[in-house]
Amino acid sequence: MSALVPRIAITTGEPAGIGPELVAKLAQRGYDAELVALGDARLLDRAARQLGLPLRLAQFSMHTATPHTPGSLCCVDVPLLAPVTPGRLDSRNGGYVVDMLARASDGALDGTYDAIVTAPVHKGVVNDAGIAFTGHTEFFANRAGAEAAMMLAAPQLRVVLATTHLPLADVPAAITREKLMRTIRVAIVELRERFGIAQPRIAVLGLNPHAGEGGHLGREEIDTIAPVCDLLRAEGHLVEGPLSADTAFVAQRLARTDAFVAMYHDQGLPVLKALGFGDAVNVTLGLPYVRTSVDHGVALDVAGSGRGDASSLLAATMLAIELARSRRAVRLASAPR
Amino acid sequence: MSALVPRIAITTGEPAGIGPELVAKLAQRGYDAELVALGDARLLDRAARQLGLPLRLAQFSMHTATPHTPGSLCCVDVPLLAPVTPGRLDSRNGGYVVDMLARASDGALDGTYDAIVTAPVHKGVVNDAGIAFTGHTEFFANRAGAEAAMMLAAPQLRVVLATTHLPLADVPAAITREKLMRTIRVAIVELRERFGIAQPRIAVLGLNPHAGEGGHLGREEIDTIAPVCDLLRAEGHLVEGPLSADTAFVAQRLARTDAFVAMYHDQGLPVLKALGFGDAVNVTLGLPYVRTSVDHGVALDVAGSGRGDASSLLAATMLAIELARSRRAVRLASAPR
Repeated sequence: MSALVPRIAITTGEPAGIGPELVAKLAQRGYDAELVALGDARLLDRAARQLGLPLRLAQFSMHTATPHTPGSLCCVDVPLLAPVTPGRLDSRNGGYVVDMLARASDGALDGTYDAIVTAPVHKGVVNDAGIAFTGHTEFFANRAGAEAAMMLAAPQLRVVLATTHLPLADVPAAITREKLMRTIRVAIVELRERFGIAQPRIAVLGLNPHAGEGGHLGREEIDTIAPVCDLLRAEGHLVEGPLSADTAFVAQRLARTDAFVAMYHDQGLPVLKALGFGDAVNVTLGLPYVRTSVDHGVALDVAGSGRGDASSLLAATMLAIELARSRRAVRLASAPR
Repeated sequence: MSALVPRIAITTGEPAGIGPELVAKLAQRGYDAELVALGDARLLDRAARQLGLPLRLAQFSMHTATPHTPGSLCCVDVPLLAPVTPGRLDSRNGGYVVDMLARASDGALDGTYDAIVTAPVHKGVVNDAGIAFTGHTEFFANRAGAEAAMMLAAPQLRVVLATTHLPLADVPAAITREKLMRTIRVAIVELRERFGIAQPRIAVLGLNPHAGEGGHLGREEIDTIAPVCDLLRAEGHLVEGPLSADTAFVAQRLARTDAFVAMYHDQGLPVLKALGFGDAVNVTLGLPYVRTSVDHGVALDVAGSGRGDASSLLAATMLAIELARSRRAVRLASAPR
């Protein structure tokens, strides 16, 4: 972080998707931060021109960095590997996407960036390029050597996932006491340190319908989830559960809960996106830096039309700036005097 | 159905739960139907007295049946097997619960009742009584020899489940092309015949996160779900999918969709209950009679306090009356002239 404002890396994502045009839109307003876009500079320039938006691109350097000004963007130019047609995936650019993410990760780990904000990528096309890739969250965690957890945060609720991008059939075996315990601990620490919640209140869902209904619909609650909740409660944490997922998200509980821990992707995210779509931000917990992301995909059907909605990317950027500031505040507060 | 109004059987459910008091509350207003409560008459009488509500009980008979009048209730007296303390489950009454449901089912199958509305039962305590029981839907389907499907209907959306009360680990294998095809066909027929929707628009969810993301996160979409959707589309049905569940429930799609088909319980119901809790009604599709139910459990913590909320039971009863009427209309319209 510079002396004055946090520096935010923004990866422009899948080149054939809406990422480049969303970043061009994002650059049009002011921020109390430095923004650094990572991606092909000519692609960004073309996206801005197609939208009729001004966009002065400047090569990023540690020495010339300044707070963002509307209509301009600092850029780390990552060259495309093949020409791009909006809306058409091309596996030849799978390596380009991963190179962009690697450079963002390296910069965040060495302290150049305080946060990374990611535009959407397409996992399938990266895999088609012969690169094993299950998602941003796993990629950044792996490079940081961290145990990360995925949170989606909307105005009405935050959801932390115990498992992320796994086939449903692999979910039950992937939830162990150790892994679940680590995930919930990461969530508690981050809610405290980054979100400023002194005593986070956590609601943990069961894995099975009706949270297993006393063992009649599965035993994972009894064998795995309840013991983890019990242990955390015994340590003084404010943990509810395991709860039946279908009735967990009622207004009464939403009001008194800082984060829900869902056991898998489609247990927690449909309700979050139904209640908060467009304002939901994906936050990676447990990394040594802040990382946020949009909550939507590459929208190939819209790419190039200018109709891509930048509200989720804007929300992700605003939250990244806010979290990067509070993280700095925590570091200062806990520094030796 | 009597010549004038439909006759609705109401099972009072788990005797230690809130069912009996909800039925006593339900009886306080008028309906354009005959209501027949099934359950222990003394338990119903006690519940009404504890709430300070008038409740004149009359033994149901085919010959004396009349439209419901507020503060009274026709009753089929099903005797308890053990004394009841509100809030305390007792497996000795597991047989009582099942007997009540069996009598409702028999009456609906022989035409005595046009519809069954069910107050909540506790599956665990019935199983503890040594009676295999996975839920109302499966129980009624089994006795009717029918392929039934479970729908939850809220003002904002309807969700049909491809699987219901199964441990999560058993879900992937339970979804076959044949079973999924039957479920969607039952939904289409019932939406047409009972709900009066000439061309129902159906949105089918994938099983895996992001609907499998082109096979990278599971192959059930490619092998099972997409072929079923394709076949239905080829027959002219308005079927979308398989869709990524997390982004399926946006306002735009909610407005243009008559029913979502979720692959399992916690994929579809949390979002429905978050958007429509208190007004959601469980409807069993595919039975030779109408069956609706509350969308909540037995609420042992509230039982006996009078604080049980009857709005879901009321919504279930109103929908049962409406569906029983339209069903009769369909029968009359399709009768030979």
